[in-house]
Amino acid sequence: MRGLMMGRFQPFHLGHLDLVRQILKECDEVVIAITSSQFNYLEKDPFTAGERIEMIHSSIKEADLDLGKCFILAIENQFNIATWSSYLKSTLPQFDTVYSGNDYVKMLLADSNIKVVKPVFLDREHYNATKIRAMIVSDEDWEKFVPSAVSEFIKKINGKHRIEIISKSDTKPTEH
Amino acid sequence: MRGLMMGRFQPFHLGHLDLVRQILKECDEVVIAITSSQFNYLEKDPFTAGERIEMIHSSIKEADLDLGKCFILAIENQFNIATWSSYLKSTLPQFDTVYSGNDYVKMLLADSNIKVVKPVFLDREHYNATKIRAMIVSDEDWEKFVPSAVSEFIKKINGKHRIEIISKSDTKPTEH
Amino acid sequence: MRGLMMGRFQPFHLGHLDLVRQILKECDEVVIAITSSQFNYLEKDPFTAGERIEMIHSSIKEADLDLGKCFILAIENQFNIATWSSYLKSTLPQFDTVYSGNDYVKMLLADSNIKVVKPVFLDREHYNATKIRAMIVSDEDWEKFVPSAVSEFIKKINGKHRIEIISKSDTKPTEH
Amino acid sequence: MRGLMMGRFQPFHLGHLDLVRQILKECDEVVIAITSSQFNYLEKDPFTAGERIEMIHSSIKEADLDLGKCFILAIENQFNIATWSSYLKSTLPQFDTVYSGNDYVKMLLADSNIKVVKPVFLDREHYNATKIRAMIVSDEDWEKFVPSAVSEFIKKINGKHRIEIISKSDTKPTEH
Amino acid sequence: MRGLMMGRFQPFHLGHLDLVRQILKECDEVVIAITSSQFNYLEKDPFTAGERIEMIHSSIKEADLDLGKCFILAIENQFNIATWSSYLKSTLPQFDTVYSGNDYVKMLLADSNIKVVKPVFLDREHYNATKIRAMIVSDEDWEKFVPSAVSEFIKKINGKHRIEIISKSDTKPTEH
Amino acid sequence: MRGLMMGRFQPFHLGHLDLVRQILKECDEVVIAITSSQFNYLEKDPFTAGERIEMIHSSIKEADLDLGKCFILAIENQFNIATWSSYLKSTLPQFDTVYSGNDYVKMLLADSNIKVVKPVFLDREHYNATKIRAMIVSDEDWEKFVPSAVSEFIKKINGKHRIEIISKSDTKPTEH
Repeated sequence: MRGLMMGRFQPFHLGHLDLVRQILKECDEVVIAITSSQFNYLEKDPFTAGERIEMIHSSIKEADLDLGKCFILAIENQFNIATWSSYLKSTLPQFDTVYSGNDYVKMLLADSNIKVVKPVFLDREHYNATKIRAMIVSDEDWEKFVPSAVSEFIKKINGKHRIEIISKSDTKPTEH
Repeated sequence: MRGLMMGRFQPFHLGHLDLVRQILKECDEVVIAITSSQFNYLEKDPFTAGERIEMIHSSIKEADLDLGKCFILAIENQFNIATWSSYLKSTLPQFDTVYSGNDYVKMLLADSNIKVVKPVFLDREHYNATKIRAMIVSDEDWEKFVPSAVSEFIKKINGKHRIEIISKSDTKPTEH
Repeated sequence: MRGLMMGRFQPFHLGHLDLVRQILKECDEVVIAITSSQFNYLEKDPFTAGERIEMIHSSIKEADLDLGKCFILAIENQFNIATWSSYLKSTLPQFDTVYSGNDYVKMLLADSNIKVVKPVFLDREHYNATKIRAMIVSDEDWEKFVPSAVSEFIKKINGKHRIEIISKSDTKPTEH
Repeated sequence: MRGLMMGRFQPFHLGHLDLVRQILKECDEVVIAITSSQFNYLEKDPFTAGERIEMIHSSIKEADLDLGKCFILAIENQFNIATWSSYLKSTLPQFDTVYSGNDYVKMLLADSNIKVVKPVFLDREHYNATKIRAMIVSDEDWEKFVPSAVSEFIKKINGKHRIEIISKSDTKPTEH
Repeated sequence: MRGLMMGRFQPFHLGHLDLVRQILKECDEVVIAITSSQFNYLEKDPFTAGERIEMIHSSIKEADLDLGKCFILAIENQFNIATWSSYLKSTLPQFDTVYSGNDYVKMLLADSNIKVVKPVFLDREHYNATKIRAMIVSDEDWEKFVPSAVSEFIKKINGKHRIEIISKSDTKPTEH
Repeated sequence: MRGLMMGRFQPFHLGHLDLVRQILKECDEVVIAITSSQFNYLEKDPFTAGERIEMIHSSIKEADLDLGKCFILAIENQFNIATWSSYLKSTLPQFDTVYSGNDYVKMLLADSNIKVVKPVFLDREHYNATKIRAMIVSDEDWEKFVPSAVSEFIKKINGKHRIEIISKSDTKPTEH
């Protein structure tokens, strides 16, 4: 049996890792799908797909979970949302259960024969990527909310600088 | 002679139907073009192109207007708006007059030889799709603003649930 | 009950019209979906979506079939073919049966709960759009294979000239 | 040596022209890249790529700068911003230095071997395209902030009317 | 150190598996990138991205190679090939060496600081996906050229039927 | 008055340069539009848009023609060819006359009020980009068919190597 979890993972934090652990208890394998993967260098999406794959991979390895049971994959947003569930099926390996607390996801999958299960989340107030990005910029103690593999990676690529620059520049030649 | 009317029709209401009637009085045939047709399952665009086509078709039939004189068609948004009028011409059957109160439409068609006529609208305060969607969610008496064919269809597909879920879910994996 | 038929309709011929008639005998309504609708001014696709809609509409009217029972719609090709059946469902009004002799179509719809029925085709050797386009250019007697509404329309827009020019010009600035 | 400057140029103003002059003093040639070039008839982007090219061309000519040393080119926004610098390299003639005060640009070019130089801008409070568009609509004295070639062009195409219509129409069939 | 190998993997065969093994001997980890991943249900590309990911995953597991050292990822074709190496960098986790016998790949990566290494291929005459697809249809002994995990998977989804139908149907409504 | 000439310019040769000269005799300015500009590193399209702009710019300079009277611009192919003339108008500065011997171009511009003029071409048998690319690979005397600026540029970027590699590699990971 395979479980699917989805997220933008900007960045991947301990709440996400906890969900991986939870799914691996209940399923044989887990598919971790990175949504909005085509976006990067944006306020809500500073990291590239490649960087996110790398952070998730290292975090799972570091946590001593079985990487061989994990599919870490990137998916793109679809204009025509009504085709979303069939896009998921074509792009991801076959999965049986989606772990999501999102009623919108449940609705979009209603016509498929995929089960949607509401997971128990770690304190979502704190394990929250938007807050973590803000803490990174203001030099608060954000490292405790992410796997060390993630905080090391973000430091290595100087993620603080990137997030800062993105939020400070008011006009970007890459934006409309 | 053929008249064109355009709208997102989310949903098609009695004001729209009245315009169809008006055009059929002045023209031989009417082209009803659904704009932003590629979008769906969004706050401003809950219904798919197919669903909108179906609602319009049934409403016209129910109103005993001559369906054989109606072209009900979906068009997509163009990035390059300066090519919009030529996109309309390539995608729709030939038309002579556009019924629109919108000066923006008039401007975009200025270089073509298409006439733009300002129709008389039914009370726009009430016949307003945004308000109707809000009334659907708050269980107000919205049915009186749409053809019965539309209210029946929306009930059949449980449109209230859809609009509610879309507006409640604050993060959507399908959105950037 | 609604039946779906699909084709490029370059141009719509008597074989197509016969299928419309057949479906209207067996179903309440017919959805006529124009595939590859975004293409035009090409060797295999000389006519625009709008022109094709117009030719089909006039042919059905001329044949005294009930236009009010016909949905004439344009659909576009999808890159990701595995999502094709869900694209059809989102773009077209709900349909129950597809009339197609194509095993490929049958395969793509296998996972949906749409029935595929093999229609009886008029002599396909002759009612064949590729041949008809060739006959138009070589001034053979092509008119007998299409509804008069179609031959009149093609003459009105000088379709012969268009097809000829497309096939003669070996380099086109619009092509790669 | 070639210098690159970028902007949406909606419209091209004396601050921009001053930068062209500055770059031509320091470099052999200047590449003027129009960003977001695919957009037009929008509040922030009223003018088409072609119109902007024409305004820049005339302004440089009028200023008696050497047009033969200027490349005036249009570039489009990229979804995947991480590939932006390689997109620039493939679309523009080779350049050595980018003139930009934008740290975001600097960051995106960090991995390439392109130098980023912060130019001295004319009073940016006044030489500001957003303000100039607002002044055009409110009939303030905007002409003094743009080259005469630009104010003449905007008058010739009735740009005031266009900007006004765009900002007044609250629903546009071309927008989502 | 990380090595990258690329292919359409239609299907993944023993030659591909051998290359994974070879790279894992020389590098710490391997990135297996599925090219043309957006295509499926086509003569040269019968399998979806999800199916290919699944086949590769199972093959590596079956071969007792360390799945935890493998990134199995899908990439899409780019129109603007000159940006291809920067697309790879943004979409894939960081990699040092590309294993490829293809001079074209080498050329496209020439400006990046990525090393290209020519691997030793298993007998390419036989370990060839085009031939294997042909053998599947003609019921030849193709199973010996692919991992058992692949032949079992292809049988489970009735891949023979799919490839056969794709090659037999001469007109496809999904094709231009 | 402005004249427009179009081409892929892979590469720009003396026949093209001759046409620039001819147009500048009859018009005040010339717009040189590079078609299929988004393609590169392909058999028929080895050079990027940027490289082609650079070659044309240098050739005109070298020929002592007035660069200040030349717009050298890149345009992209459109799916919907019926909108092509409106795309040209939105992307290029206003032009009055198109210099083209192509009846297809003439047809696509028939509904616009743009004049199409058939230029006198230099011996097209020899001044032919396809032949020149073949001669480059086979080390024939191709330099005499292009401006020296072009032959120097192609040598500088090692264009021979590029064209050779492209034509030799039978499978490309960037191709479908």
